[in-house]
Amino acid sequence: MNYRFSSRVSQLKSSAVRDILKLTQGKDMISFAGGLPAEELFPVQAIREAADRAFTAGTGALQYGLTEGYMPLREQLCTRMAVKNMHVNPEQMILTTGSQQAIDLLVGVLTEPGDTVLVEKPTYLASLQVFALHGLNVIAAESDEDGIIPEDAERLIKEHRPKLLYAVPTFGNPTGRVWSLERRKKLLALCKQNEMPIIEDDPYGDIKFDDSEQFPTMFSLEGQAERGAVFYTSTFSKTVAPALRSGWAMGDSSVIGMVAKAKQAADLHSSAIDQQILSQLLSGFDLDAHIRLISDSYGARMLEMHELLMRQNLKDISWVKPKGGMFLWLELPDGLDAEALLRCAVQKGVAFVPGSSFYGNNPQRNTARLNYTYNSGARTELGVDRFVDAISEFTARS
Amino acid sequence: MNYRFSSRVSQLKSSAVRDILKLTQGKDMISFAGGLPAEELFPVQAIREAADRAFTAGTGALQYGLTEGYMPLREQLCTRMAVKNMHVNPEQMILTTGSQQAIDLLVGVLTEPGDTVLVEKPTYLASLQVFALHGLNVIAAESDEDGIIPEDAERLIKEHRPKLLYAVPTFGNPTGRVWSLERRKKLLALCKQNEMPIIEDDPYGDIKFDDSEQFPTMFSLEGQAERGAVFYTSTFSKTVAPALRSGWAMGDSSVIGMVAKAKQAADLHSSAIDQQILSQLLSGFDLDAHIRLISDSYGARMLEMHELLMRQNLKDISWVKPKGGMFLWLELPDGLDAEALLRCAVQKGVAFVPGSSFYGNNPQRNTARLNYTYNSGARTELGVDRFVDAISEFTARS
Repeated sequence: MNYRFSSRVSQLKSSAVRDILKLTQGKDMISFAGGLPAEELFPVQAIREAADRAFTAGTGALQYGLTEGYMPLREQLCTRMAVKNMHVNPEQMILTTGSQQAIDLLVGVLTEPGDTVLVEKPTYLASLQVFALHGLNVIAAESDEDGIIPEDAERLIKEHRPKLLYAVPTFGNPTGRVWSLERRKKLLALCKQNEMPIIEDDPYGDIKFDDSEQFPTMFSLEGQAERGAVFYTSTFSKTVAPALRSGWAMGDSSVIGMVAKAKQAADLHSSAIDQQILSQLLSGFDLDAHIRLISDSYGARMLEMHELLMRQNLKDISWVKPKGGMFLWLELPDGLDAEALLRCAVQKGVAFVPGSSFYGNNPQRNTARLNYTYNSGARTELGVDRFVDAISEFTARS
Repeated sequence: MNYRFSSRVSQLKSSAVRDILKLTQGKDMISFAGGLPAEELFPVQAIREAADRAFTAGTGALQYGLTEGYMPLREQLCTRMAVKNMHVNPEQMILTTGSQQAIDLLVGVLTEPGDTVLVEKPTYLASLQVFALHGLNVIAAESDEDGIIPEDAERLIKEHRPKLLYAVPTFGNPTGRVWSLERRKKLLALCKQNEMPIIEDDPYGDIKFDDSEQFPTMFSLEGQAERGAVFYTSTFSKTVAPALRSGWAMGDSSVIGMVAKAKQAADLHSSAIDQQILSQLLSGFDLDAHIRLISDSYGARMLEMHELLMRQNLKDISWVKPKGGMFLWLELPDGLDAEALLRCAVQKGVAFVPGSSFYGNNPQRNTARLNYTYNSGARTELGVDRFVDAISEFTARS
């Protein structure tokens, strides 16, 4: 039989990151590509004990659960969110399979095919896949170290009337940037004026190298969930472990209700075991102390990579030292195509993500995203050496 | 802020079953509504031990996994499928969040909005939600005790040119019916003639009351995965436990590859912990013996409910004794509206699902689905009493 494929799906490019991940499995490859947390920091023992408590809670633990997710975990999350000045009740929250699903469902609920969505340039590549699958047009606003430039956003909004803004304002992926308070306020006001909901994707906000710095979320600045402009998504993937695949979305209860209807069709509900393990973990384990521990460690790893690169006196390569998150964003010499560089780098035994993956269109090709959380010490050193080798060889050749 | 909702999502009816589930929580309600397995039969201890082995396998167990799912589990599943004469390799299989997600992703990959899909009348209600969300038209072919009537399917195919057939040929939901071998072959041939892929949804095939009976799957009759007409979906929800949310889809590798691309955007991957627990379970636990145990128990529960209903000498109420699965499908007296009956029944403390939920359009309103797997003994007896009370009162009133 011959198959006719959905035009949206067949046009979809496979995620470069995940394809590279496949390529690099089981080889002597040092990967700065994936956004992978450090495995040796996973709280395995605490998760194991939490799982054991979940299984002894009774056979009901293994039954079908609510589409909206395990209620005790939603309640615990509401309490955690309140500490960050984000006030929601469990009806304003839904648990999802990672924050990726939260983005997908929110976008599905808040748009029609053919609508336009506004993003930062560059932005999270798997959000671009979501927009493509929902048949949306993407426009990207220019940004600098402080986030989206409001004037450019305003111009694009007037011209294209986008239906929503998707943004990662704190330690963005891929750039690691933090939006300034002023920019956050300006963008929030701009979106409210134009009746444009904001999806604030915040998987990295907790991974903060200087604990004393505060970056209020757009959701907290909005100040209200009900009829609010901001829908907030986050995940336990970076703070606990990705394999537990638990994220959440929160905001206005009517929108969350619609998300639940869409989720019924998508998968009925996410893993109830994972949610119960996390609930048990939150009640018997100091997650905040653990987050401090991994943030400190990631800060040290970022510095390590930063200094290794600095020591090389690389010509025409620049980056901004991130204040948190998982990525270093490099601007390479003008005219250098990072996709071609990747092929050379992979032969030398190091992988990264070419920056072009993070643009809806008109990619800036001389950019690269390096993850610094997964490797450390000698591996990072060797990886940076290989990376620099690849650049030298590549620039000498071309 | 005012929100504009996606027209498809806002038109979507919430699942009656799940709404009733909510309604019946924490009350003295006997529910024959949900398709819930018996909790007391969950292999809790084996799952707990499997989880323990998964966590001791190393910190990598908690890392991001492949979109296609945990490779050892896919390999084990391929071996299990081969026993049923379904031969696939791991590239022809993807693990999903329950078989619900397998259906959603396959439908998304194989259709365009505006396409038409052919189903059996009546059919699984959450598949109807999937079709609605993907903007599809649904046409339902008449069926009898042996499955879809080929002549009616042929007529509808000629008239509407549907892009695919969705079916639950073995112990269907809601009717519990098993398609005869002849019907399976006829429908397969018809779909192949018309280049229509078939989604064969088989969550209940293992729950077979007479182990000696064989019902070959459409997939096994097709005989080939590559370029084959049949895409098969199933789940561990009924045979192990729903909370582990693990299902799978299998078929042609190019289609499965497309499903993986769509899944990247939907949620990156399903719970890797759940998949590892199941993989450990399959290697240290006799799942087939467990399936025999629950099938025998469910067979006894079906008989129990069947005999309780028989004893009541209900006028103008008929059903076919199922050979497997989880549901009894009742035809009530002409003119009796089961949705109205449900309101009456809930007041008496018993819930079921009105049959109208399972029709795309033109519902046969005098039908009801009763689950017999969740309750047993005195609870089933009391529930049937209340149900019969409700019918008596209702028919006396109207």
